[in-house]
Parts: sequence; C-alpha cells; structure tokens
Amino acid sequence: MKSGIKELEEKGTAAKAASKKLAFLSTEIKNKALLNVAEALIDKQSEILAANKIDYAEAKASGMSEAMLDRLMLSPSRLEAMSQDVKTVAALPDPVGEVFEMRTLPNGLQIGKKRVPLGVIGAIYESRPNVTIDISSLCLKSGNAVILRGGREAINSNSALAKVAQGACLNAGVPQGAIQFIESTERALVNQMLQMKGVIDLMIPRGGPGLIKLVSENAAMPVITGGMGVCHTYVDKSADLSKAVAIAYNAKVQRPTVCNALDCLLVHSQIAQTYLPSIAEEWAKAGVEMHCDEQALAILKPVSSLKLVPAVDEDWGKEFLSLRVAIKVVSSLDEALEHIEKYGSGHSEAIVTEDYSVAMRFLNEVDAACVYANASTRFTDGSQFGLGAEIGISTQKFHARGPMGLKELTSYKWIIFGTGQVRP
Amino acid sequence: MKSGIKELEEKGTAAKAASKKLAFLSTEIKNKALLNVAEALIDKQSEILAANKIDYAEAKASGMSEAMLDRLMLSPSRLEAMSQDVKTVAALPDPVGEVFEMRTLPNGLQIGKKRVPLGVIGAIYESRPNVTIDISSLCLKSGNAVILRGGREAINSNSALAKVAQGACLNAGVPQGAIQFIESTERALVNQMLQMKGVIDLMIPRGGPGLIKLVSENAAMPVITGGMGVCHTYVDKSADLSKAVAIAYNAKVQRPTVCNALDCLLVHSQIAQTYLPSIAEEWAKAGVEMHCDEQALAILKPVSSLKLVPAVDEDWGKEFLSLRVAIKVVSSLDEALEHIEKYGSGHSEAIVTEDYSVAMRFLNEVDAACVYANASTRFTDGSQFGLGAEIGISTQKFHARGPMGLKELTSYKWIIFGTGQVRP
Repeated sequence: MKSGIKELEEKGTAAKAASKKLAFLSTEIKNKALLNVAEALIDKQSEILAANKIDYAEAKASGMSEAMLDRLMLSPSRLEAMSQDVKTVAALPDPVGEVFEMRTLPNGLQIGKKRVPLGVIGAIYESRPNVTIDISSLCLKSGNAVILRGGREAINSNSALAKVAQGACLNAGVPQGAIQFIESTERALVNQMLQMKGVIDLMIPRGGPGLIKLVSENAAMPVITGGMGVCHTYVDKSADLSKAVAIAYNAKVQRPTVCNALDCLLVHSQIAQTYLPSIAEEWAKAGVEMHCDEQALAILKPVSSLKLVPAVDEDWGKEFLSLRVAIKVVSSLDEALEHIEKYGSGHSEAIVTEDYSVAMRFLNEVDAACVYANASTRFTDGSQFGLGAEIGISTQKFHARGPMGLKELTSYKWIIFGTGQVRP
Repeated sequence: MKSGIKELEEKGTAAKAASKKLAFLSTEIKNKALLNVAEALIDKQSEILAANKIDYAEAKASGMSEAMLDRLMLSPSRLEAMSQDVKTVAALPDPVGEVFEMRTLPNGLQIGKKRVPLGVIGAIYESRPNVTIDISSLCLKSGNAVILRGGREAINSNSALAKVAQGACLNAGVPQGAIQFIESTERALVNQMLQMKGVIDLMIPRGGPGLIKLVSENAAMPVITGGMGVCHTYVDKSADLSKAVAIAYNAKVQRPTVCNALDCLLVHSQIAQTYLPSIAEEWAKAGVEMHCDEQALAILKPVSSLKLVPAVDEDWGKEFLSLRVAIKVVSSLDEALEHIEKYGSGHSEAIVTEDYSVAMRFLNEVDAACVYANASTRFTDGSQFGLGAEIGISTQKFHARGPMGLKELTSYKWIIFGTGQVRP
C-alpha cells in the first residue's frame, strides 16, 4: 500500500487538473451526474450498508457512545434521504457562469463580473458519512473539485460512498479526478493537507471544536469555519408572551443537539414573573434542565416539577447541545445586548418584542451571522433560508457569513468588453 | 519610550473598541470627517512637508534610488492630489447598512442581508506616504478601524499624516482610536502584528513581493494579497491591427511601472509579419526594449532602430515594471491560452480580436481577476472601474477579486423579521 503522503500528493494533482475542466462543465452533465449519484445510492445500497456494518461493529467494540453510533449508522431510509438531498442539489440553479453587476462605463467599456468556481475544495470531517455525499454534490454543482478526508471511524462507509459517487459521475461524463477520497487514515495527513496551499483553494472543516481549531490555526489556505453556536433569545418586556413561549420552546427543544439551538434565555425583569413560569412549565414537560441566575431561581423555585440548577459562571457562553439551558433576568435591552456581545459566538441571536424601536436596535446592534426578531434561531440553515443546501454555517465575516450554499463556493472574474479603448 | 510590542497591544485594543462604535457611525459624521481630513492636508502642509524632508534627507543619505526617492517625496501638489482623493471617498455612497437580497419565505419570514464593516483592518505598507491617507479614508468610510504600520523610511511623513487625519476625524466626532498608527519601527513588530488574530480581522499588505510573501505566509488572520501582475495581450489573427497597436502601446507605455502594465505580447503567426513591425516602431519611439522569441526576432531584425534582445526562459512570466516587454509568436488561440495559463499571475489578460467566438473563448477560459476583449489592461483599477477608490487589487479568489473598493471592506449579517415563526 502506498504511503498516505504520496497518495495525498497524487490525488491533489489529479484534483487540480480536474478542477480546470470542471470549471467549464455544462450544467446538463453536472445535473446528469448528480441524478446518477442519487440513483446509485439506492442501487448500490447493499455494498454501502455492508461497509457501514464494518465501521459500526468496530466503533461499537471500541466503546463509542450511543449518540455517536447513531450518527455513524447508515440504513436504507438514510440512504434514501441522502439520495433525495442529491436530487435537490441537481434541481438548484447552476451558480457558475452567472454574469452580474454588468454596466457600461462612460468610455464605452462594458464591464461586469462572471461567477467562477473556487477551484479545489478540501474537506476534513468527522463521523457522519452523509457528509461525503453532501460535500461532493455541492462541490460538483458549483464546478469545484474536492479532496475528502473523512474520519477514521467511518473510513469504510465513506470510501464506499465516495466510490459510488465517483463511478456515477464518470458515467455522466464528469472529468476523472473531480472527487478525491483519501483512503489512508494516517493522522499526520491532516497536517500535510493543511499545507497544500497551491493545490487546495479553500478548506472546510466539519466536526467538533478540536478539529475546527486545528484547521483554522494551521491551514495555509483560506478556511471557512463555523459549526459552533452559543445562541441567545432575549424576551423583552414588550414581548407577546405566547410568541415568546413558542419561540423559546422551539429553539431549545425541537433539536437540542445542533448549533442553532437555544443556549441562554435572557428575560426582562418586568415580565420575568409572568413569563418564566410559563416557559419553564413547557420546558419541564420536555425534560429541560434550567440553569438559573439568582433572580430566575427565586421566581421559578415555587413552581413544582422543574429541573432547576443554580447557574455557575461557566453556564454563560456555553454551547449545551442538549436539553439544558441557562436563564438570566436582565433589567434592560442594553444589559441583554452587553451579555450577548460578551458571551455570544456570532452565530444566531433572537429577540422577542412588540416594540418597534427595540426590535430595530437589536437587529442593528447585535453582531452575529443571523439576527432574528420574533422567530426561532432554529431557522439558521441553508435549506430553511431557501439556499437549497448548505456546505456549512460560517461564523466568520470574511467571504461568507451564515448558511453557505452553492454561491458561497464560487468566486468571480471581471470581464470587460471593449472596442479598442486605451487609458488616457 | 514604551516598547513596540506594548504599543501594538494597546493600539490594537483601542482599535477594537473603536470599531464597535464605528460600525454605527452616521454617514454624515464619516463624510464630515473625510472633508476635515481633506482640508487639514492643505492647512497643515508645512508640518507634513517638514516631516517628509527629514525622511527624504535620511533616505537620500542612505543611498535610496531616484525612483524610490520620488515615491517617498511629498509636495504641495501631491498633498493637493491626496486631499482630492479623500474628497472623492467622501462623495462615494456609504456601503454600511445596505440591505440586499431581501425576500419573504413561504412561512412569512422576511429575510435578507445587511452590510456591516469587517471590524479592524491591519495595513502593512512600504514607501509611499499617501497610502496612510488612502487606507485611512477607505477604512473610515466603510466603518472599519485601522492599524497602520508604514515603512521605516517614511516614518516621519506617515506619522505626521496620521496625526493630521486623527485630529481631523476627532473634530468631526469620530470615536477616538479609529485610526491607529504604529510609531515604533522595530522589525519584530510585523510578525507580532500578524499574530493578532482576535484583534485584526483582515490584513492588507501593500508593497513588494517580499512583503506580500511574508504577510501571506505568516498572518494568522485573513489576508488580501495582490499587487503583482504578469499581464499578457494576445493579438489574434482576426485582430483589427490599428486597435491592436493602440492597445499594446497603451498597455506597455502609458505607465510601465505598475502591475497592470503589459509584460508579454503574444501574436498569432498569421499576422505577425504585418503587425509586429507596426507596434515595434511605435514602441521604439518610446524607448521600449523588446525581448523576442526566435520567430519575432526574425521578423523584427530587418526593421531599423529597434532595441531587440533575444528572449531567455526567464522573460516568460516576468513582471518587468519598466519599458521592457517579451514578445512571442504563437500558432493558435490554444497556444496563447496555454501560455497565459502557464505564465500569467491571474491579474489582467487581454485579447485583441474581431472574431466573436475567439473573443468569447478567451473571456471564458482565461482564469484571471480581469479579462479584456479589445481594451488595454491598464484599466484594471478601482477608480477606472467606477468603484471611486481602491484599497488594492486582489489576485486571489477568496472574498474579493480584482480592484477592491469600499464594498470589499465589508461583510454582511442575515437579518430576519418574524411574526412568531417556529421551525416545524
């Protein structure tokens, strides 16, 4: 078996070569390839599931947690869902080639921007094998080659999925080399990959905070990071309390393990006495554990059957990813804004208010990828935002912010149509 | 005198604090500040020129080249030009706060993007003192704080200019700390600055290849690089030869020391015999030295009074920045495209042709920031492109490509107006 570093170099070269052809590949072929992939995920499910069984058995034997095992597991219905997602990407408009901001200058030059792929995308990800297909299909549609490096625990599943995608793409006429999957599980390869600046144009890490940190601190090429969210919802004194109950309940309970779920509820002191017991009773039914500051604790203690815990310093700014929430009573919008500035992660922040000026101040002043008035932070998602699919949610400001779809995997070039103009 | 590192840390903290206020500063105050700066550059010219005299004398004594001395020198007319440039920035639309891509989702959520500043811009630059004012005014207008680190050779001039700008801004009500200038000339500070990831949101190096390389390889934060251009013009067999002479002449001669000037002329073999002598005679009048491949040399040798040099391998892909040009005869559009792909720097590339399909292929297939049909590459410039001013010309694909104006110094946040929506 060849060394991992050699494999990486060869696949990098192949991806770079493929990217030059992919940039000009017709929408028709790209869509045909995507539909082929969608079909192959069903047709070849026995191979894929057999590979997944090996990973699952090994992971279980090594003592992986139930939650992680569940993320790792593939099933016919999960493959069906992946297949549907690929069809969704096929149905999205092709971003490549779009000409925008075209205008004619006083000297007659016609000048505009034309959307082009970034080139080669590197993806380093953990656990969930569907990421192999998600990222491959988004990269293909946006005309980018991709180098995939999945987690060791899902190596057989990822490898099988990548092979299925590669075969289905080749059949449709996609240039060889468009989708590269690194078979070696050598640990050192990640650092090696992060140094391939001339080959990989953008690196996307998807996984836990450790992976994100490693990649963003060591990558020589641009990185888009995200995936971590400490999300607040501030219930203003002017809030419609029934909306505030529905929104805070949804943000915490609908899917507590994800980055856009509620972590900290801020409540204006003037309505805390009436609002807090109503939301707390709803949350209690769903099993939510509430980490309360002193004032919230005093209000909620008399209510029966709540899971209450006195908040400690570490509860502020904590991403819970579970049915736990921090609660703090504040005396003003300013105090809420200060708390969010201090503890927020720049992901998703919401206010519930019927006061126009308060809503506008919140929307203007909170510095986060997504800022909501009167809606659940759970909407922060490419598909919910109407982008069709997402490669990730960026919490940085550079290049793209918030949910990133196909367009965010592109750049542009200026195109200039002249009739012989020279600069005076 | 305090240590450079301490100065850098303090100024970084002050810039970060100022950036939070700058993000909400009214257009009115920003414009008033810019007009104040424009005025102060004239009113305080004696102080500025006195500081510049010190730098100039020291640079001359240390043996700086005439070209570099000229870049360093300030004069009343140069200050007048700088003042005009600041007024131009004041007259541009404020990018901050623009709401775009607003739409209503099926569930009634109104969702869109709002343009926001990036935060704190770091600038490391060499020689020309006007960069101090250029970058300060663009950052101010786009709501960003800036930390300026100029070259040692212009320290007195830059410091005087920064003081004038700081004072004029404060008078208009701009928050203290918006413009930070590093007084220390310790060399180690550059590396220190490149590690200030939590403080500086974007680093802009402006200077020679050594500086660009140092910054792009070592900066922990995002960098926008550019400033290097190996520019080709390909004269197709179908070219209008008078346009081709005018365009190639302009691209080489109008200002040979800049990045968008012509470096390599590619000529189709079918018209080389007629075209090359005409452009060569024009170039000869301007003193252009021509580094010719074998075929071009054979055609041009019989023409009298030309400065001809046989091309060597290093002439291909070379940025001349002077009245020298490389000339190569090619046998097809494909050969021209291959040459450009191999030797171009992704800056500006042009074709001269009357053939529609050839023009379209060139515009589509050349991978560069700016691709021209029938116009001079010298137009690659923020002001020429109608952006009003530019912070630089990016030759990377990430975030921004080509001339970058105010908009390219911003990011966006998603704003979402709800009426109580929760995710199903």
